[in-house]
Amino acid sequence: MAVYTYEQLFEFTQQVFTLMGCSDSDAFKATEVLLSADLRGIDSHGVARLSGYIRLWQSQRINTQPNIRIIHETPSTAVIDGDAGLGLVVAPFAMQVAIDKAKAVGTGWVSVQNSNHFGIAGYHAMMALQEEMIGIAMTNASALVAPTFSTEKMLGTNPIAVAIPAGEQPPFVADFATTTAANGKLEILQRKNEDTPTGWVQDEHGNASTDANILKKKGALLPLGSDREHGSHKGYALGSIVDIFSAVLSGASYGPWAPPFPAYIPMPENMPGKGLGHFFGALRIDAFRPASDFKHHMDQWISRFRNATPAEGYEKVLIPGDPEREMEIHRRQMGIPLVDAVVKDLEEIGLIFKVQL
Amino acid sequence: MAVYTYEQLFEFTQQVFTLMGCSDSDAFKATEVLLSADLRGIDSHGVARLSGYIRLWQSQRINTQPNIRIIHETPSTAVIDGDAGLGLVVAPFAMQVAIDKAKAVGTGWVSVQNSNHFGIAGYHAMMALQEEMIGIAMTNASALVAPTFSTEKMLGTNPIAVAIPAGEQPPFVADFATTTAANGKLEILQRKNEDTPTGWVQDEHGNASTDANILKKKGALLPLGSDREHGSHKGYALGSIVDIFSAVLSGASYGPWAPPFPAYIPMPENMPGKGLGHFFGALRIDAFRPASDFKHHMDQWISRFRNATPAEGYEKVLIPGDPEREMEIHRRQMGIPLVDAVVKDLEEIGLIFKVQL
Repeated sequence: MAVYTYEQLFEFTQQVFTLMGCSDSDAFKATEVLLSADLRGIDSHGVARLSGYIRLWQSQRINTQPNIRIIHETPSTAVIDGDAGLGLVVAPFAMQVAIDKAKAVGTGWVSVQNSNHFGIAGYHAMMALQEEMIGIAMTNASALVAPTFSTEKMLGTNPIAVAIPAGEQPPFVADFATTTAANGKLEILQRKNEDTPTGWVQDEHGNASTDANILKKKGALLPLGSDREHGSHKGYALGSIVDIFSAVLSGASYGPWAPPFPAYIPMPENMPGKGLGHFFGALRIDAFRPASDFKHHMDQWISRFRNATPAEGYEKVLIPGDPEREMEIHRRQMGIPLVDAVVKDLEEIGLIFKVQL
Repeated sequence: MAVYTYEQLFEFTQQVFTLMGCSDSDAFKATEVLLSADLRGIDSHGVARLSGYIRLWQSQRINTQPNIRIIHETPSTAVIDGDAGLGLVVAPFAMQVAIDKAKAVGTGWVSVQNSNHFGIAGYHAMMALQEEMIGIAMTNASALVAPTFSTEKMLGTNPIAVAIPAGEQPPFVADFATTTAANGKLEILQRKNEDTPTGWVQDEHGNASTDANILKKKGALLPLGSDREHGSHKGYALGSIVDIFSAVLSGASYGPWAPPFPAYIPMPENMPGKGLGHFFGALRIDAFRPASDFKHHMDQWISRFRNATPAEGYEKVLIPGDPEREMEIHRRQMGIPLVDAVVKDLEEIGLIFKVQL
């Protein structure tokens, strides 16, 4: 484990994206989005993934000079072709279109085709906060999840993020995979050689498993709810909605045809659309009620929930976004710790691109 | 257990709503919405609740001659004051406003204050299907659910429904409470004097429980995910998002202040808004891509998922909406079975209103 400052990691990553062929502004934005994950403590989605993006670029699945453009629109909607660009760049472009439409007609809704992995959903949803808007972001992803009653991997971990502004209180920011556990949690257990709790994964026959390596043995992640008796059909429905909004509405590739993030996995045959899909929404608060009224009530909502009676053994109830915000304050001051495998990865990247970490 | 035809229950219920003071068209609509639950097999939300609506009306919490009106709007949004009307009438009005806005600018989003229980969310979301739109409906509800790490009931079962049209295939219709199990499932177990599975409820100290009557003993329902290790913070976030979109955006009463459905429970003190809140969305398919393309790909999505490899012991993978659609076909032909307690309830209602079942 080694600790790096945000600025160190930023400079390194920005140089790498630039050397991959990104414009200066795209390299800056891609770095900001990627590192927002490290700052917020979602280590699986930060610089740890830089080598994955590089391998996709080496396999010519990423276009670092994309012509990102609106291909269809109405006053409140747009479809965007990401031109195989980095999702880290395509997504903020698309969210900005949603925000601009919300300025004009109250809300904006943008579905994206032909994109790639966009980092953490929360970054894009949070773009709305400065504009006194609610932000929504979701994406489909490589199929790792079996629907209820199935053994076949049909859906990605398909996250949903919703960011809601408040007044005195910090904003409400939910950002979660529609599975019981995100894939990043499995990777942590794999490194520690530990088992998963029951309810996270199943084996190739659909039986309960606690093997953190089961995805490599034809097993699958389980939808939020884990099993039918505990509502996995709801998690399956949520993941499906994300898939349809992100990919069927936009013309991206959906379900088991979603392009895999690991570059060594061949692209699925007969893909029904282009690349990965995302979906973004922006709702102007004052399209519903005066922003000052809304913020006053969000403050009351947040403080009432924060002060809900805690269960025995717990100090307080958390508001979605609390742990990530506290982590960001801590890591901006104390630096970002990286496990040895990630440091080694970055050193190898440094050698390839002749950049010093 | 007795079986009634849809027409019998329709005539009875419509007469009761008319005698409560509803206009003919409101009585018809309220009946149609209420009985859509019985047809679809969601027995807890159908005629079994008629006596509950009547008790709310007797306590003067329901206005059967409401002036339902738009109090704020932009091209893609509106806030509606339900004037304390039946949610069964307010909700279809609001969903129609969302649909009309989607016709004009691509999408429509409507938040509702000062309403009451609106029946099943799925009915309202499905209104969009005839218009080649995606429909979304959600509502807050009486607080029965404890957030993760808490023992206090702060949220309702806050359902979300999403209806998505297809071409040859039947539509995708998800309609689910954001809890592991809906309250109606507890009521069924109470009648049978059976325990719940673990993960559905907790006791007053926040410990796991299997007592189907625990809500009457200061226990609480658990958010989807059941416990922190299985993602209950995600269910808690989802229920919170429904609460905020339905009630904080609209000016309804939120969180633990949501008005209780049982009329014998006194209204909360210091309510921060008016009545119950709902949120509706309509997205015109061709605001994103040609409807024929979308439907073709939805057909492919649905048939691919329906044909996903089933787990051992299961015949096939279900698409959200499959069981309810099959139930509706069955019950329209074979009638709607009602348990004795509900029949007795309806007979008592018949005596009060002098209406024959």
